[in-house]
Amino acid sequence: MSGSVTGSLFTVSTFGESHGKAVGVVVDGCPPNFPLNEEDIQKELDRRRPGQSGFSTARREDDRVEILSGVFEGKTTGTPICMMVFNRDVRSEDYKTIQNRFRPGHGDWVYQQKYGIRDYRGGGRASARETAGRVCAGAVAKKILNTKSVKIVGHVIQVGKVRAEGFDSEFIEKNPLRCADSEVVEEMANQIRLVKDKGDSIGGIVEIRVSGLPAGIGEPVFDRLDAELAKAILSIPAVKGIEFGAGFKAAEMTGSTHNDAMTASGFAGNHAGGVLAGISTGQDIVFRFPVKPTSSIRVPQKTVDRDGNEVQIVTEGRHDPCIAPRAVPVAEAMTAIVLLDLWMRQNARAF
Amino acid sequence: MSGSVTGSLFTVSTFGESHGKAVGVVVDGCPPNFPLNEEDIQKELDRRRPGQSGFSTARREDDRVEILSGVFEGKTTGTPICMMVFNRDVRSEDYKTIQNRFRPGHGDWVYQQKYGIRDYRGGGRASARETAGRVCAGAVAKKILNTKSVKIVGHVIQVGKVRAEGFDSEFIEKNPLRCADSEVVEEMANQIRLVKDKGDSIGGIVEIRVSGLPAGIGEPVFDRLDAELAKAILSIPAVKGIEFGAGFKAAEMTGSTHNDAMTASGFAGNHAGGVLAGISTGQDIVFRFPVKPTSSIRVPQKTVDRDGNEVQIVTEGRHDPCIAPRAVPVAEAMTAIVLLDLWMRQNARAF
Amino acid sequence: MSGSVTGSLFTVSTFGESHGKAVGVVVDGCPPNFPLNEEDIQKELDRRRPGQSGFSTARREDDRVEILSGVFEGKTTGTPICMMVFNRDVRSEDYKTIQNRFRPGHGDWVYQQKYGIRDYRGGGRASARETAGRVCAGAVAKKILNTKSVKIVGHVIQVGKVRAEGFDSEFIEKNPLRCADSEVVEEMANQIRLVKDKGDSIGGIVEIRVSGLPAGIGEPVFDRLDAELAKAILSIPAVKGIEFGAGFKAAEMTGSTHNDAMTASGFAGNHAGGVLAGISTGQDIVFRFPVKPTSSIRVPQKTVDRDGNEVQIVTEGRHDPCIAPRAVPVAEAMTAIVLLDLWMRQNARAF
Amino acid sequence: MSGSVTGSLFTVSTFGESHGKAVGVVVDGCPPNFPLNEEDIQKELDRRRPGQSGFSTARREDDRVEILSGVFEGKTTGTPICMMVFNRDVRSEDYKTIQNRFRPGHGDWVYQQKYGIRDYRGGGRASARETAGRVCAGAVAKKILNTKSVKIVGHVIQVGKVRAEGFDSEFIEKNPLRCADSEVVEEMANQIRLVKDKGDSIGGIVEIRVSGLPAGIGEPVFDRLDAELAKAILSIPAVKGIEFGAGFKAAEMTGSTHNDAMTASGFAGNHAGGVLAGISTGQDIVFRFPVKPTSSIRVPQKTVDRDGNEVQIVTEGRHDPCIAPRAVPVAEAMTAIVLLDLWMRQNARAF
Repeated sequence: MSGSVTGSLFTVSTFGESHGKAVGVVVDGCPPNFPLNEEDIQKELDRRRPGQSGFSTARREDDRVEILSGVFEGKTTGTPICMMVFNRDVRSEDYKTIQNRFRPGHGDWVYQQKYGIRDYRGGGRASARETAGRVCAGAVAKKILNTKSVKIVGHVIQVGKVRAEGFDSEFIEKNPLRCADSEVVEEMANQIRLVKDKGDSIGGIVEIRVSGLPAGIGEPVFDRLDAELAKAILSIPAVKGIEFGAGFKAAEMTGSTHNDAMTASGFAGNHAGGVLAGISTGQDIVFRFPVKPTSSIRVPQKTVDRDGNEVQIVTEGRHDPCIAPRAVPVAEAMTAIVLLDLWMRQNARAF
Repeated sequence: MSGSVTGSLFTVSTFGESHGKAVGVVVDGCPPNFPLNEEDIQKELDRRRPGQSGFSTARREDDRVEILSGVFEGKTTGTPICMMVFNRDVRSEDYKTIQNRFRPGHGDWVYQQKYGIRDYRGGGRASARETAGRVCAGAVAKKILNTKSVKIVGHVIQVGKVRAEGFDSEFIEKNPLRCADSEVVEEMANQIRLVKDKGDSIGGIVEIRVSGLPAGIGEPVFDRLDAELAKAILSIPAVKGIEFGAGFKAAEMTGSTHNDAMTASGFAGNHAGGVLAGISTGQDIVFRFPVKPTSSIRVPQKTVDRDGNEVQIVTEGRHDPCIAPRAVPVAEAMTAIVLLDLWMRQNARAF
Repeated sequence: MSGSVTGSLFTVSTFGESHGKAVGVVVDGCPPNFPLNEEDIQKELDRRRPGQSGFSTARREDDRVEILSGVFEGKTTGTPICMMVFNRDVRSEDYKTIQNRFRPGHGDWVYQQKYGIRDYRGGGRASARETAGRVCAGAVAKKILNTKSVKIVGHVIQVGKVRAEGFDSEFIEKNPLRCADSEVVEEMANQIRLVKDKGDSIGGIVEIRVSGLPAGIGEPVFDRLDAELAKAILSIPAVKGIEFGAGFKAAEMTGSTHNDAMTASGFAGNHAGGVLAGISTGQDIVFRFPVKPTSSIRVPQKTVDRDGNEVQIVTEGRHDPCIAPRAVPVAEAMTAIVLLDLWMRQNARAF
Repeated sequence: MSGSVTGSLFTVSTFGESHGKAVGVVVDGCPPNFPLNEEDIQKELDRRRPGQSGFSTARREDDRVEILSGVFEGKTTGTPICMMVFNRDVRSEDYKTIQNRFRPGHGDWVYQQKYGIRDYRGGGRASARETAGRVCAGAVAKKILNTKSVKIVGHVIQVGKVRAEGFDSEFIEKNPLRCADSEVVEEMANQIRLVKDKGDSIGGIVEIRVSGLPAGIGEPVFDRLDAELAKAILSIPAVKGIEFGAGFKAAEMTGSTHNDAMTASGFAGNHAGGVLAGISTGQDIVFRFPVKPTSSIRVPQKTVDRDGNEVQIVTEGRHDPCIAPRAVPVAEAMTAIVLLDLWMRQNARAF
């Protein structure tokens, strides 16, 4: 199936451009008879929304989701669920200047190369706005996983060089950075203010923790749990990597240290990040991913125009100086989609 | 499609267990009329083979590949190519002791949980031996990509805390560690000898570089080039993460530093690792991934048996003290499979 | 992928229920840079519309399609094309009586069995109204195929026992039955009036002819051109079979009669229906399919209610006495979707 | 996925050419813990074998299947099952004459057009020999379905103009024609002898009946049970159509006659062939398909050579004068594969 469709059984098909009429998603294969309403979706969509604080773009997306199909009398029917968010507060004129100039770090040039045409307004399909559809689909998956006691929690663990050490899940949604460590949140905020004042941006690292997932989820050898999550997370704009459990640190460890011993009461550690041989162990799934600094900055940059001339570009628009906090709900959504899909695949073989 | 099948158009279906009759692969959708013979495959398979030096397992796998279909008079016909490697030098008795004990860090326990049954001999399907089929499939993809001037080169960039800085591609296949830096190779080797003497193992990091790939490859929004590579690489046993270009370091960078400026002669840098918005830029594709320390060690470890009793386990067998060098050809193979598949998808839309 | 999504590269995902807010479709993987506007879609949608004559349902579906994404400045961009038709003229009260009674010949009972829930209003997802989305997607495929000189023409070749013999493609859209034979159209119409007067319905047979398709399209051994078309056509509500070329008559033929001889100027006949070994021959693709009599009839029928009690049912609503004419544009649409998808797959291997 | 791979969850990947080293199949996604051994497979393979009587080709295929993976201690493990049949009794010299002449009714010419190359020996991949792999895969599916009380029975219902009316399932495997009607079997046999004596061939119709399938199997709107079966059956060489239940006869029926009434004890009839709205009703699944007369005949035929010259061709080789009886086990196999796959998809959504 083509690139904007994902999922074997819980199939998600997103559509829409940043400055088109709407963005949205069709979720097909959703298990029937689960309660679902627009508030379930809206709640997650609000978490993704920009303009929530000085740390994110000033663009106001007063996004309202509408469920157009697949739900009847408050329950999923097993038929495709179309969820739509109409675009409002679209200022296309902001982007006129970039019609013929490729923004460094953006998809502008590669889209032009790949398709021979692109909707340049606001980045078109390559805009992070596309993730609204994912969040809607993820909200459906989350709702179902929640009924199975699976919880997915994401938080910003690093901004610039500032790293969180503590983890207080209650604190995450109480601060605009989605930091789980009240000790460092102010320092993180300062980092962001600093680059913002210069018209620049900064990167970060997000961590996702999943609890309650039973052992046995994941489909070796190619559709491993970690492999599917890696694909899903790397498909989020600005994400440049992923690591599970000890991750890159595993390179420096010995087997005797890295191996998680087993005891009568379960695993003695979780260097594996909850996945062995591509299958969930029943422990928490833990992974982290770097989010690159937002490409759209007011600092003048060198680039070329469509005729290949070297020019300078300043991206005015309205952009997040650090996109990591807003990547959290998107990553949670993608995680939920993958987990439910793989869980269904495990169900399938149970005769 | 199910978990041991991958690829949209260049479809790869591996089969076989470590101590079964054979391992192998069926490649379907291969472009026709490309020269292919068993030596093309064997060459890559030999690079994967264990027992090449004191640094890898003493098990002798004198693997000979046999092409059973899909090639006629020295050329691919476009029909499925079955490649088979019969298992030899199988000592199942080595594994009798682990029949009822779950090895920490291995797939033993999760396979049992997932399927309710497992071929415990040599790790069965979860054994790294499964990757022989991938290397065969990858050799086919590589052969075709080579005719398009695409080169895929992997090397071990880190073992324990020893990090290579230099990069001499000629040196890689001249040393058993597949290190590209002659300055550090001895230090890496010492690291490995050290842990090997203790019956322990150590992790490492592998880097893959792809040159010659044209711009425009990758299928947003979900089947991005980096997302597909991430899935493919994470599906390799023992791999715990991946990063492209600046990777995790991007978290500490500003947009003005991270963004690769464009000039009349191309991109001025490659922090992106050759991928923007999930599409190749025409630059080198560069990514790295951590390989955990081999789980099978002679150091006694705590675990449980099938009845849940706490027991000790010592994995005798024959195992690599550092698996990273052997992960190189496997990762190259998976990379080739992904690149060819996505390239075909790009071809598809060209009317 | 799940059941409401189809197509390997040209991927079509329909959604919507008969009496929900909207029906529609997302087309992903569409080749970029082809001209497309709403009129291209509307034209086909109008052909499918009920209420065009006394022979079809009196329900007025003044369907207007809206393109929400994937088209920019009048051209496809290669990104997902969402097309939406909002439901109007919905009289749900008509269906209150069938909430607890399963209509014979309908999906009511099996949907309840399968999903444990169903949107009973107007047949919900099982309604033929779902095909509006298919027609929209097919219109896109048709537009592209037309630029390649591929023409897809459908017509009603049989109603009841009345069989058309002549074929005048110009005549098809000039009569409400979409009959290509002016000699028999009146007799067909009489057949329909006869059953309509009794509150009954009647079946028919539709034939599709495709011209201009090059040789080489179709993906053996499973995704043969005829196999994919068979699946696509059988997925249309009320269709109960398919046959290519000589079809069922081939059973009575000898090889020497059935085989189409080859000459310097091409094939001497077309008993094969334009497909050999699952691959197009370059001749016309010709197939026929039976459409069962509409299940919704005013004739009282025996059925059961949700409690298993035997009851009678009369389906009032507004229904076509013969659905075959309206199946024509739907079948053309499904044909176009399959042809374009398989053509793209053939393109993919051309390096 | 590519054309020689089929199935969403129970994924079947066949390989091999008529005169290559082997034909075979990889089945991935098989439910674990089901008893399976080579005899289960061999039994079905023997039913497909040619040379069983004077009515089929004299080529001796003393096929022995070998299970190479995925089965451990007599049970499926859930990992890929590779089944291999090595080619023996291959007389490639028979086919030298057809290297440059395209046999009418065969895939020779279209394969050459599609791939630009073909293994001409014995028809290569387009040979019916390819179906051996399908029968192996189907045997696995059948074994599992049998444990769920699903029975799949096929029989030849028509040869030439001779139509069976009676149905005695016990009789089917007792005659080489797989006819279920002892009254007409001799007449059928005469038909075949008649054409055989002339070096010609004749077509037939096969009927498949499935009992024991629960209601609720099939995935609307595209992956309907009947649509998936249609694709699977049409993917068998020489099959030119399919019809369910009343099939093409439905064209002549009224709704009041065709609709199967429901009663407290179930459906009152089965004009639908066991499928409504693409979902199984719990009744018998009943469908029929025409098998064209074998293309390979000794009657001289007109054709062209690779240079486009008009030539005559006589296909010597060893061929079935009527292939319908041997299509029976292949169709049963494809049916089993589809049913198990769709059943697993239904299982998937059961939380």
